[in-house]
Amino acid sequence: MELWFTEKQTENFGITARIKRTLHTEQTEFQKLDMVETVEFGNMLILDGMVMTTQKDEFVYHEMVAHVPLFTHPNPENVLVVGGGDGGVIREVLKHPSVKKATLVEIDGKVIEYSKKYLPEIAGKLDDPRVEVKVDDGFMHIAQSENEYDVIMVDSTEPVGPAVNLFTKGFYAGIAKALKEDGIFVAQTDNPWFKADLIRNVHRDVREIFPITRLYIANIPTYPSGMWTFTMGSKKYDPLEVSDDRFHEIETKYYTKELHKACFVLPKFVADLVK
Amino acid sequence: MELWFTEKQTENFGITARIKRTLHTEQTEFQKLDMVETVEFGNMLILDGMVMTTQKDEFVYHEMVAHVPLFTHPNPENVLVVGGGDGGVIREVLKHPSVKKATLVEIDGKVIEYSKKYLPEIAGKLDDPRVEVKVDDGFMHIAQSENEYDVIMVDSTEPVGPAVNLFTKGFYAGIAKALKEDGIFVAQTDNPWFKADLIRNVHRDVREIFPITRLYIANIPTYPSGMWTFTMGSKKYDPLEVSDDRFHEIETKYYTKELHKACFVLPKFVADLVK
Repeated sequence: MELWFTEKQTENFGITARIKRTLHTEQTEFQKLDMVETVEFGNMLILDGMVMTTQKDEFVYHEMVAHVPLFTHPNPENVLVVGGGDGGVIREVLKHPSVKKATLVEIDGKVIEYSKKYLPEIAGKLDDPRVEVKVDDGFMHIAQSENEYDVIMVDSTEPVGPAVNLFTKGFYAGIAKALKEDGIFVAQTDNPWFKADLIRNVHRDVREIFPITRLYIANIPTYPSGMWTFTMGSKKYDPLEVSDDRFHEIETKYYTKELHKACFVLPKFVADLVK
Repeated sequence: MELWFTEKQTENFGITARIKRTLHTEQTEFQKLDMVETVEFGNMLILDGMVMTTQKDEFVYHEMVAHVPLFTHPNPENVLVVGGGDGGVIREVLKHPSVKKATLVEIDGKVIEYSKKYLPEIAGKLDDPRVEVKVDDGFMHIAQSENEYDVIMVDSTEPVGPAVNLFTKGFYAGIAKALKEDGIFVAQTDNPWFKADLIRNVHRDVREIFPITRLYIANIPTYPSGMWTFTMGSKKYDPLEVSDDRFHEIETKYYTKELHKACFVLPKFVADLVK
């Protein structure tokens, strides 16, 4: 018997991956959680039918969410990750020696539990002494924070289910308040081929709140279209003006200091979305 | 009834697209040719089960094959496209006013015929007076050419079926001979996620023949992994040293003069392939 998992990334297009077996499947309080072992990409976490991360390509997303803002900020000490229960962003954050504390606020404890079990090389750093894990509503956590964080990363699902609030202007205003006066935030903002409106709308909202707003991209083969965008809002530091001596040695498979700037050079149709 | 076309991009991973109808299907002398109308990407040309081009995303591949070498060369007049029977690369080549003649050598006349019929906005420029279309073997055409072309683009299928010869060192040596003393060539060289060895091998072969060898990338959602690579061999001009005044206005949807250099900035795992 051949087993194939198919994600309809749009109504009319999708990816399909052969799986060896289902490791876990559960309707949590918030979403449908599936963990499968694929042949091509290793273990794969699926939430509400959408691929969240896989062992083979996870490094792209996690590195690009974390290192672009962390190398833009001159001294990130206190970092917040909203969502990201698989722990991959936290793992990358901890590669920066300036970071004294990294807080993860994930709404669904089951994501953490099963990532630790089936994606240990991604989630393993959640037990690091610099990390505080809170199973809580990221929107509420942000609303209750003020002048606290140097960098905030929003590692959410797509704007369906529990993540709907994380794509609102009110949320970005809350993030601005939760950040220190020179803080930076980054959010994943889907892909320009199928979700152009989302990118355009988030960019407009963030630009009304943050003096510096930038869009950057990375290639993630298991995400729709293979091209993923990230929207950055920054109060003071421009990622395009980071001087070369800012970069310290760091072990990565995707991010490089040259890519730090090149990832902001957008294909014309993407640049046109946020003009 | 729902109709879905699925391309297994590897043994264990693929894309799937809902189709409205099959427009044409035929076993040509060289390969299986299918033309389908998809909901998400418009009309789609499929050769031997592999997506070649679609109306929605074709601009990426065609612009990036053509404009990177054509803006690297200071005065491209005589251009050869090997393969590329859909005509998309030719369309982009003709946007450069310096080009006096563009020759297309496509082995399979049926690709030209059905592209003209079902992909007219891609193939329409094949009738331009500056274009000569030859239904012939690209490998043989190259072997018989000497000191003739300013730029050669290899727009082939993957190295199966009729394109096997187009990924050999002998072919690249032939290209070097067919180019003028300051000529440039570009070939599509698949993706780094599933075909790392191919990229590494082509790069090694080209580097032994051309003094300047460069790898660049673009995002193509209907190609495996969404990240596509192009290998450039150049006798004299370095694409990274093109001065800003070289660029003239050109209508594109993907290529920009900023991207001309940024597309050579590779993710670390890709750069490591060709070190």
